[in-house]
Amino acid sequence: METDIETILKELRKFNQERDWNQFHNGKDLAIGLSVEAAELLETFLWKDPEDANLDKIREELADILNYAFQIADKYNLDIKEIMLDKILRNAKKYPVEKAKGSAKKYNEL
Amino acid sequence: METDIETILKELRKFNQERDWNQFHNGKDLAIGLSVEAAELLETFLWKDPEDANLDKIREELADILNYAFQIADKYNLDIKEIMLDKILRNAKKYPVEKAKGSAKKYNEL
Amino acid sequence: METDIETILKELRKFNQERDWNQFHNGKDLAIGLSVEAAELLETFLWKDPEDANLDKIREELADILNYAFQIADKYNLDIKEIMLDKILRNAKKYPVEKAKGSAKKYNEL
Amino acid sequence: METDIETILKELRKFNQERDWNQFHNGKDLAIGLSVEAAELLETFLWKDPEDANLDKIREELADILNYAFQIADKYNLDIKEIMLDKILRNAKKYPVEKAKGSAKKYNEL
Repeated sequence: METDIETILKELRKFNQERDWNQFHNGKDLAIGLSVEAAELLETFLWKDPEDANLDKIREELADILNYAFQIADKYNLDIKEIMLDKILRNAKKYPVEKAKGSAKKYNEL
Repeated sequence: METDIETILKELRKFNQERDWNQFHNGKDLAIGLSVEAAELLETFLWKDPEDANLDKIREELADILNYAFQIADKYNLDIKEIMLDKILRNAKKYPVEKAKGSAKKYNEL
Repeated sequence: METDIETILKELRKFNQERDWNQFHNGKDLAIGLSVEAAELLETFLWKDPEDANLDKIREELADILNYAFQIADKYNLDIKEIMLDKILRNAKKYPVEKAKGSAKKYNEL
Repeated sequence: METDIETILKELRKFNQERDWNQFHNGKDLAIGLSVEAAELLETFLWKDPEDANLDKIREELADILNYAFQIADKYNLDIKEIMLDKILRNAKKYPVEKAKGSAKKYNEL
């Protein structure tokens, strides 16, 4: 049975193929595109307290970020669930609960 | 049956709860964190042709970006699959195939 | 008499020429470099109140950002003082005092 | 005699005072603002070869970046010329000519 992640990837592939856009999608430009959208999400919080940011814009920019991230994963044949769970595990070692609990310190300051 | 997306979200929630980190996770700082990781992904391509970027670093930074993006979605109760598919549909209207095919132009220049 | 801006530009040009680095300095990679440094400055504020950021790191990252910005201006033959003063003037029209005073609203919301 | 840098800083201070905007200008939001503009500069190169980016947009976004960078320096009482020249000197040690000439490698890979 098709997973949610696979459903999304199929729609992204179809969207790009219909428009013959894969020719533009090298990793460097995709990474630039993702950074541009990340900054548009950031902009929704500029000069504001977190609670005052516009939810529709957060939703829109987050969707753009996720779509770029999924396309980059697809381009490099990276299994999205696997790389995310793997990074959570590695972060668990960098930030052991007994040292990191309740602390915002970076791992090299723990 | 639990979806892949739900599995990942559960691991992220558990990771944050064990470390009592939700207190730091307002939308503004999460958006900053995501931008910081997006720039670390970008840095893997700096001065390089796309094909020469280090795949391990791409994998690592992309996982960090995705983990932040999923946490932001979770914080705002946004359904990840729904917002992504919805944005693909809206992009399909902004970039109709007959106008956008083979073109890298932004929608307001089509 | 040489201006401060000219002094800095001369040092940057000398630095790059000694190392034969101009070959790498196309506008796209310089813009990527600047974004990478901008994110490093941002990172000094991550999870923190503004007053708690490390001043040495702010100083270091800001210097990196300025060095990239001056190099980009130099590459495109842009007069730094002229483009900055010109933009302040244009912002003054976008944000007239009578409408913008005391408000954090973006110009299209005034 | 007033330097160019001092002239620009005076105009920025006047602009902010007239609009009573200093209340919003904490370091964290200024750093966010700078990152947002850095991404707008980056966007001028998205999907393009460096030579095809629009010069007017490069000029505009670079001016925005510089204006934010100068305001951050002013807020933290950092002497712009001093921190830039100091960083060039430190980079000269990190990237000695005999090792770094003609190479795009990062200092920890030299």
